[in-house]
Amino acid sequence: MPIKTLDKIFRPKRIALIGVSNNPDSVAGIALKNLVGGGFQGVVYPINPKYEAVMGITCYPDVKSVPKIPDLAVIMTAAKLVPKLVRECGEAGIHGIIIMSAGFKEAGEEGKALEKQIKEEKSKFPDMRIIGPNCLGILVPGLSMNASFANGMPEKGHVAFISQSGNLGNQLIHWAEQQGIGISLFVGSGNEAQLTCNDYLEYLERDPHTRIIVLYLESVANGNEFIDTAKRINREKPVIVLKGGRTDAGKAAAASHTGSMSGENAVFRAACRQAGILDVRVPSELLDLSAAFSSLPLPKGNRVGIVTLGGGWGVVTADECNERGLQVPRLPHGLIESIGEHLPPFWSRGNPVDLVGTRDMEAPLVAVEELLKWEGIDAVICLGIVGRNEFVRQLTRSTRDVDEQASPEFLTSIEKLSHEYEEGFVTKTVELMEAYEKPVIGVSLSRTDKGTVRFLPGKRYSGVFYQTPENAVNALARMVDHTRFSRFHSS
Amino acid sequence: MPIKTLDKIFRPKRIALIGVSNNPDSVAGIALKNLVGGGFQGVVYPINPKYEAVMGITCYPDVKSVPKIPDLAVIMTAAKLVPKLVRECGEAGIHGIIIMSAGFKEAGEEGKALEKQIKEEKSKFPDMRIIGPNCLGILVPGLSMNASFANGMPEKGHVAFISQSGNLGNQLIHWAEQQGIGISLFVGSGNEAQLTCNDYLEYLERDPHTRIIVLYLESVANGNEFIDTAKRINREKPVIVLKGGRTDAGKAAAASHTGSMSGENAVFRAACRQAGILDVRVPSELLDLSAAFSSLPLPKGNRVGIVTLGGGWGVVTADECNERGLQVPRLPHGLIESIGEHLPPFWSRGNPVDLVGTRDMEAPLVAVEELLKWEGIDAVICLGIVGRNEFVRQLTRSTRDVDEQASPEFLTSIEKLSHEYEEGFVTKTVELMEAYEKPVIGVSLSRTDKGTVRFLPGKRYSGVFYQTPENAVNALARMVDHTRFSRFHSS
Repeated sequence: MPIKTLDKIFRPKRIALIGVSNNPDSVAGIALKNLVGGGFQGVVYPINPKYEAVMGITCYPDVKSVPKIPDLAVIMTAAKLVPKLVRECGEAGIHGIIIMSAGFKEAGEEGKALEKQIKEEKSKFPDMRIIGPNCLGILVPGLSMNASFANGMPEKGHVAFISQSGNLGNQLIHWAEQQGIGISLFVGSGNEAQLTCNDYLEYLERDPHTRIIVLYLESVANGNEFIDTAKRINREKPVIVLKGGRTDAGKAAAASHTGSMSGENAVFRAACRQAGILDVRVPSELLDLSAAFSSLPLPKGNRVGIVTLGGGWGVVTADECNERGLQVPRLPHGLIESIGEHLPPFWSRGNPVDLVGTRDMEAPLVAVEELLKWEGIDAVICLGIVGRNEFVRQLTRSTRDVDEQASPEFLTSIEKLSHEYEEGFVTKTVELMEAYEKPVIGVSLSRTDKGTVRFLPGKRYSGVFYQTPENAVNALARMVDHTRFSRFHSS
Repeated sequence: MPIKTLDKIFRPKRIALIGVSNNPDSVAGIALKNLVGGGFQGVVYPINPKYEAVMGITCYPDVKSVPKIPDLAVIMTAAKLVPKLVRECGEAGIHGIIIMSAGFKEAGEEGKALEKQIKEEKSKFPDMRIIGPNCLGILVPGLSMNASFANGMPEKGHVAFISQSGNLGNQLIHWAEQQGIGISLFVGSGNEAQLTCNDYLEYLERDPHTRIIVLYLESVANGNEFIDTAKRINREKPVIVLKGGRTDAGKAAAASHTGSMSGENAVFRAACRQAGILDVRVPSELLDLSAAFSSLPLPKGNRVGIVTLGGGWGVVTADECNERGLQVPRLPHGLIESIGEHLPPFWSRGNPVDLVGTRDMEAPLVAVEELLKWEGIDAVICLGIVGRNEFVRQLTRSTRDVDEQASPEFLTSIEKLSHEYEEGFVTKTVELMEAYEKPVIGVSLSRTDKGTVRFLPGKRYSGVFYQTPENAVNALARMVDHTRFSRFHSS
């Protein structure tokens, strides 16, 4: 299938929304609001014979009546109307179709028959490409295009998401937005009546906006082809996969969901591993790895330096590293002496570098840079430095509440200093990654209102700050897996 | 050691704060603000010869000068002053001492010598009990007593925390507060120059306010005694342990932190498991299990019913259950028919019960109750029902932004309905747990500003809502472990 054919769907100039609604709390209403309100620069043709206009935009009775031929039609009507609408789209010269409507293969015999009818109608129009049915739609932040009924719109970036589940995809989008993960494309692939994950993979292989590919799959139409394609792409663009339906219980659930049979899962997973594809266990991990792979330089080995404000977190993180196959090397005596010159006297004199709650603002940055300089370290994890601001805010707030004698200026100055310090630390971290080409991963410990990814305009890398050490160590361990595999296969 | 002796420390009427400061950004300043500002109902004697008063409270030059003998003295001075102050406390008749000051065993030879001097001074006063040194202090929310320099004060409740690390303990406290986990007591045990975890365990065994005991340990002074005590207590009060220093890297870090040698860890962990003590891997799990064990009835078996608004989350959760040893039983035909009478026609007709994004407010509750009624189910996990409110808020906000024709009253009514529905769902969930004595665990998926635990006054149980299914499944799997162990040992 030629790549440019999918450009009609993913980079359309005119979009028909078939079955729009002016109820803002319905699927069709949300999709309308998303597309129009999201800032899409092309033309939108709402279609519904019941309305003269929706959101002030002229509504057309059918696709034949619109002024120019749309590149893309989004169908949101009841399932039983869809086959006829597909035919009308084909007759009107529309080649790209997204069917959001549910009630097909996943919904019993009647639905299966309807899905078969869609395929029959499609076969009359060889150039037609269909996403869905039973899907969430697509998002392309780079074009401000939200042709979905998802709740959220992440920033533009380099991660492409494909999800066979709409409900799960919706949450991935919401999390990506909250966590500051920029995406190139989201596709809710639904029942895959025509276009499958393999087609999307091939498109993304050549999409210049996409550097990382993330998939939630319940079934794979052609497993061997998928593995071959993903393996090829994975050398240039990391491919991260969560396969739902790994277990008997999950498989039974998947069958009633996207109407899929999950096939031989153990075989699929083994094939993924042999192909170097990163398979993950839970959806939150898809986000964690997206953040890391899209924002950080790849580590060249598995040796980790740890910088912490408190000993307990250093211990816990060192344990996690060891248990995940990462080393926490001892520092050579000379290095301890030389970095000790720049650190407060009470530091731990070892790795983890424990700065024992220092208030010295420079010490953590000195420690990170000294570790990065050393050839014995491939990556640095720093704990509780960005994130301490939450404690400072709690402290000043409670001091204001209880201590009438506390100087308001002093408290405000502490808050300001702490905030500026964190912003400065993020910037400096990114600059250090650019200088040393080694990843620095932050752990905030406290829940902050900032995202996981802290994007800085004009920089090659971004700051990454997870809430817990286990998330940071997992992301780093998977990056090391990827490095190892790439190195093995390029040698 | 008699239990009541520790009551002097944990339930004091008069507290001397030795080395107070009026700098709100110092350890001693924070401790003062915490104790006075936290609402402690007893008497506080600030001690520092440099001040006439702090926060408006008369300051005394030393412990000899205070009006009545304090039950507890908290020492926050430089390390080198501490041995002399311990002697002065003893001479003044003070039996309870918390030494927050650092710079002892964890800080090299000089510190070791100072810690030895403390023990020598202590030996002159047989009734004296010392917590620390190098510790965070203690919190007793039930007495509004915050004798620590922690950033936060959880609600009162039934979970006791003991942490050998101050930095990590501080974060546990912060998380407990954010997550709505009520605590009976927090002890930062620090270097354990005198009182050890074993002493605290024995105290907590008989403490009527404590039902669950959570420990972060780096070293155990007397492993066999610890295991014996914990094993005995665990039959009545679940004991949850995170042992830092499990690996070589972690062990090295622990040695430079609390000055501890971690001992034979594999042996310790095996002993924990044999004793039925719940050992966990990461700090966040301590909170997750605290929430579950303190809020939910124990499951009687491992059979889980899953209720979801979307198929993908059902699949992922079923996979997690199976991989963690939990069953997701098929529903018998008769049950499908009878519960189908109350559900929308498009439900999955199986377990997971997939309600396919229903707007029917009653359907999720009906599904939960029907599952609970069935003797083939021991616990229910429900996904995305409480938490959907975040999406509703996002929807109404963005609709207001882009659609001038949208009725403000309609949008407000949707928000109100959604909020009230969630509150009602939490209440109903708790009532169902009381009626059926089976746990119902929620997964919010979205990050909410509510805590994990939703406490309802006058109820035996509380609602528990984790953000991700993996957290819910893990908590449930560990509860099943506990049930299995208890049953095995009572038979």
